[in-house]
Amino acid sequence: MARHDDIRVLAFDIFGTVVDWHGSIVREVQALYPQVDADAFALAWRAGYQPAMQRVRSGQQGWTRIDELHRQILDGILPGFGLAHLDDEARRHLNRVWHRLDPWADSVAGLQRLKTRFLITTLSNGNIGLLTHMARRAGLPWDCVLSAEVFRAYKPDPRTYLGVAETFDLAPSQVMLVAAHQDDLAAARTCGLATAYIERPTEFGAAHIKDVSPDPANTLHARDLLHLADQLGC
Amino acid sequence: MARHDDIRVLAFDIFGTVVDWHGSIVREVQALYPQVDADAFALAWRAGYQPAMQRVRSGQQGWTRIDELHRQILDGILPGFGLAHLDDEARRHLNRVWHRLDPWADSVAGLQRLKTRFLITTLSNGNIGLLTHMARRAGLPWDCVLSAEVFRAYKPDPRTYLGVAETFDLAPSQVMLVAAHQDDLAAARTCGLATAYIERPTEFGAAHIKDVSPDPANTLHARDLLHLADQLGC
Repeated sequence: MARHDDIRVLAFDIFGTVVDWHGSIVREVQALYPQVDADAFALAWRAGYQPAMQRVRSGQQGWTRIDELHRQILDGILPGFGLAHLDDEARRHLNRVWHRLDPWADSVAGLQRLKTRFLITTLSNGNIGLLTHMARRAGLPWDCVLSAEVFRAYKPDPRTYLGVAETFDLAPSQVMLVAAHQDDLAAARTCGLATAYIERPTEFGAAHIKDVSPDPANTLHARDLLHLADQLGC
Repeated sequence: MARHDDIRVLAFDIFGTVVDWHGSIVREVQALYPQVDADAFALAWRAGYQPAMQRVRSGQQGWTRIDELHRQILDGILPGFGLAHLDDEARRHLNRVWHRLDPWADSVAGLQRLKTRFLITTLSNGNIGLLTHMARRAGLPWDCVLSAEVFRAYKPDPRTYLGVAETFDLAPSQVMLVAAHQDDLAAARTCGLATAYIERPTEFGAAHIKDVSPDPANTLHARDLLHLADQLGC
């Protein structure tokens, strides 16, 4: 474990890494609107995510929280799924599904083990309110809720990764980003953070298995958070 | 309980309200430097707190975290207590006492009860790292760690109180500030928040009993956090 002795903080990506956004949205949409192709709906909603944040990153749109971006994307896709008639209350309720995402089966137990040796924080593009509601509902035992909203910048902006180190008065190498996305991890490495990749082959649903090949550039590669806890001696 | 039915979030002042800064500092200073008048030392350190934040509020000093302000005040008072010889490592260690403050006897149990019905967050001028380290050590079960550092403004700036409501997409009246300081509560009321005063008569030590008279302007007045939980039906 010598090479990890210096790490003090584990910062977690959330959507896809700790919680199953695709499965959770599919279940809610199937229950509310059984006529809709819930798999396609979940994928369409998520597909708008990076372009929406890019509008903020580029300055085309001022600082906007993910709750608002999710709503803008939702309003855009509803007509294509025959749901243009939904009123504001129904749209608000549906949009809050992102606050109600279910954790992967290993997430709560894995975080509880990791928390015994490390300070554990979110580092998500999700807003603080969303992450806090999610944590209460799912039982995610964060020490702290950090978000793009705190740093007023969306990942992969270096201010987010370096912001975690500064928040805890640490060197970047004392912080490990834990994520199921190689691009997020690569950006964190550029800032000097340690990185752990988590395999989430069904992030986009069982019908769209994701490549979870190891990248040797990461400090660690784990099947799930329990496997990460094993490797970190927790 | 009808008048509290609308409240969703309890935001807690920390120093003096949830943790006993005076007693904790006295204990550490007595252990480390028994020749020092620990009571006077704790009071002198805290006395520099408002003037230091005022330098930031007025723009005389750029945004500076409480850890740095505490260190500036500490460096200023050490010579008067015969501790001018302390090296940087000793000063760093002593300054981190603010991360190691002990909770009042009722705090952990009170927060656990309040958390069953309300989302509980810090709203402190202390920085995020300080508050997170304190919570881990003391077992304070926050749902979320909000701080002046998130809003880049120190209480009683309205951006802090209104920032809590905005973070959770609530009206100000759906947030209650819980504090042992009438000036903090008065500023929160101006922003439309509900307020609960907590009696902490020994905040400044048993030798300096504080006036804890009720102010009828507050929504609630409680002896401690267990009494607050009683009044809120938790």
